[in-house]
Amino acid sequence: MARGIPDLIIRGGTLLSMVEGESPVEDAAVHVREGRITSILSGVDTAQRRSNHTQIIDADGGIIMPGLVNAHTHAAMSLFRGFADDLPLKKWLSERIFPAEAEYLNPETVFWGALLAFVEMAASGTTCVSDGYFFQDETLRAAHKVGIRALVAQGVIDFPAPGVKDPKDNIEVARRFIKRWQDFSELILPGIFCHSPVTCSEVTLVKAWEVSQEFHLPLQIHLSETSEEVGEIVKRTGKRPVEYLDQLGVLGPGLIAAHGVHLEDEEIDRLRETDVKVVHVPESNMKLASGVARVQQMVKRGLVVGLGTDGCSSNNDLDLFLEMDTAAKLSKVFNHDPLSLDAKTVLKMATSWGARALGLEDEVGTIEVGKRADMIVVDIGEPHLCPLYDPYSALVYSASGADVKDVVVGGKILMRDRKFMSLDVREVMERVRRIAEGIAI
Amino acid sequence: MARGIPDLIIRGGTLLSMVEGESPVEDAAVHVREGRITSILSGVDTAQRRSNHTQIIDADGGIIMPGLVNAHTHAAMSLFRGFADDLPLKKWLSERIFPAEAEYLNPETVFWGALLAFVEMAASGTTCVSDGYFFQDETLRAAHKVGIRALVAQGVIDFPAPGVKDPKDNIEVARRFIKRWQDFSELILPGIFCHSPVTCSEVTLVKAWEVSQEFHLPLQIHLSETSEEVGEIVKRTGKRPVEYLDQLGVLGPGLIAAHGVHLEDEEIDRLRETDVKVVHVPESNMKLASGVARVQQMVKRGLVVGLGTDGCSSNNDLDLFLEMDTAAKLSKVFNHDPLSLDAKTVLKMATSWGARALGLEDEVGTIEVGKRADMIVVDIGEPHLCPLYDPYSALVYSASGADVKDVVVGGKILMRDRKFMSLDVREVMERVRRIAEGIAI
Repeated sequence: MARGIPDLIIRGGTLLSMVEGESPVEDAAVHVREGRITSILSGVDTAQRRSNHTQIIDADGGIIMPGLVNAHTHAAMSLFRGFADDLPLKKWLSERIFPAEAEYLNPETVFWGALLAFVEMAASGTTCVSDGYFFQDETLRAAHKVGIRALVAQGVIDFPAPGVKDPKDNIEVARRFIKRWQDFSELILPGIFCHSPVTCSEVTLVKAWEVSQEFHLPLQIHLSETSEEVGEIVKRTGKRPVEYLDQLGVLGPGLIAAHGVHLEDEEIDRLRETDVKVVHVPESNMKLASGVARVQQMVKRGLVVGLGTDGCSSNNDLDLFLEMDTAAKLSKVFNHDPLSLDAKTVLKMATSWGARALGLEDEVGTIEVGKRADMIVVDIGEPHLCPLYDPYSALVYSASGADVKDVVVGGKILMRDRKFMSLDVREVMERVRRIAEGIAI
Repeated sequence: MARGIPDLIIRGGTLLSMVEGESPVEDAAVHVREGRITSILSGVDTAQRRSNHTQIIDADGGIIMPGLVNAHTHAAMSLFRGFADDLPLKKWLSERIFPAEAEYLNPETVFWGALLAFVEMAASGTTCVSDGYFFQDETLRAAHKVGIRALVAQGVIDFPAPGVKDPKDNIEVARRFIKRWQDFSELILPGIFCHSPVTCSEVTLVKAWEVSQEFHLPLQIHLSETSEEVGEIVKRTGKRPVEYLDQLGVLGPGLIAAHGVHLEDEEIDRLRETDVKVVHVPESNMKLASGVARVQQMVKRGLVVGLGTDGCSSNNDLDLFLEMDTAAKLSKVFNHDPLSLDAKTVLKMATSWGARALGLEDEVGTIEVGKRADMIVVDIGEPHLCPLYDPYSALVYSASGADVKDVVVGGKILMRDRKFMSLDVREVMERVRRIAEGIAI
């Protein structure tokens, strides 16, 4: 562990470490050196250990917490935010989104779309993201430019796709993508993303799993998002999706299954036995009327559940604070149980459990000595956060991403007092607006 | 209609008038004189008609729209924001909220709590609010101080209540309250609020209705919020709540029924026939697991439905932009229909329909020549509002109250570039924090 004078100190707030069993620490200071957390202090004068080179973030009595983990998204779909609303999923996808993607996605548009999305995520407190899409070299470059921690997975689907005209090449494109980027940066992991058991053949699913195993990287997939999808798998294979994937041998600790809306108890149990991770995506599931995932059952049965926003074309924002609020409330009303998914549990889904879902629990997700310094400061100075009896409640039920003041990833300050340090956000928005003008025509 | 040089011009944005059938107007200018809208222009140089005394709000390419109407809330409950979460409604109410109210509510605490709530509302784009609570002289003074338009109703319940120790006095207290304030201000109407058919006797309900009729002011009530409440009424009277109230003769155009979670088709039809207004309160209903109101059915059957946040102790914020998002998404997933409650319909609930629910449709709820100038400007300069294909979608699915830049009520600027013009928000928060320190003990 790096010792000595810290590079960065965040001080003067209430610390929520999100470590199991730890209580909030008042008047805390977190020291960072070479990108990692070196000490966590409380109520002491921390100024003594600083040098002229130590950067200071004053939390101003706000909340210091781990950066949020958005465990399922498609960043560049920010290009299609509000482009097609209030439609059935199938029509939304086949008549609006797929044609628009085919026509307007290219390396340049994906770069700017992803850049905008990562800026929006960072600005609302997300420091780590799991993305699956196409032209992922560009998404990866965008993540690198913003400085966000990212698992960037190349999409695989057995149809002609953006950047992959012949589906026969899809696995090889993903394999080469991973090889190209696997040693690029501490912050960024490449990966592979199968669109779904419906849109990928048995062979594709198995090969994608083999690639993920070869590189010890996760495989992302959409699992049981709609009842139609489940029906289609049952019709084709005689099995429900989890049993089908099980038979193919692709259930394992490296599988990140997004949505999981239509899972029966036996399927949940089998996912837990095989250590598959599930990502809850409530707002997208609500907006597309896909259904309500049985998160309370999943948590009770021991599954690791992360939280995601999905692409912001079906949400239509990337604010995990609002997603936490929705997740908690939806679970309560859906289960007729106001005790379901309390504030602290939902906050775990968006931090420590999200990190576990991505296989990054040794690096991020909590504030602990030795972990990477991925942290945010939430300002509590606005009327909607007053009074504040309980910080977990305030973050889940009252805060929004706009309350995030400072964002640090790997010890580097991305946003300070809501200003990005090394990015011209106006230029990013201007470029996306110009792309969107073409799409709107 | 007042003519001549305007006092105030809001210009340079996309205008959503929310008038039925009207399309968005680009590069609009709205002129205001003596508190009312005098003209609505597009794409012209509006500077010619101004004088040195004309105030100008530059919408900066944002969205100019009617201020939102929060049709059901209990403002001073901001004091209990986050004080008791993740609990069943009955326990929440009887073991936490009622005892806290009994101990800590007094004229002073209600004033500061209501002041904070009205500040939060205005800062998130609400310009008109329907409130029901106790010590309402103070709530009314707080609304007046903030400058928000308000229907402030004195609570009536057949138990000892804050400020009304003997329930025998409850109707008379409310009656005197109305008399005291009925001619006070163009912006503020006093009113009466029966807690619910369960907590008020037949006699109380009928007398409250008579008071509301005597003064031509609405009667607010909680109606069929929980299945337990419905069961209790059925047990007591042999009738479901709507039939029970119908028999008492208290159904009519002046009744504002909040929640309406457990309404059968026949009850919805009877409410429409009698022109009762319903207020949908989705986030509170979700958080307390009360159920999901059948809003799609209500709208289809012709009911006037407004939107409310409830008190922020069961929400836990007063942001109607977030409430709109939740209302739309909840209706879709609950009805298995992604077309249910589209963005424009939800926006009507929070503006023109909300005004109708409060009986104020001739004054506010749309931007039309002759109406009161209650308007807001929404900044679209943040990443989560880029790109913007459709303003209705952007407002409902992507915006939050933090995007509201300017707020005008009755032609007076309350907030400009997110700064309150004549209020020290920090002092309000400091006072509420001090009150909350006592409550937390």
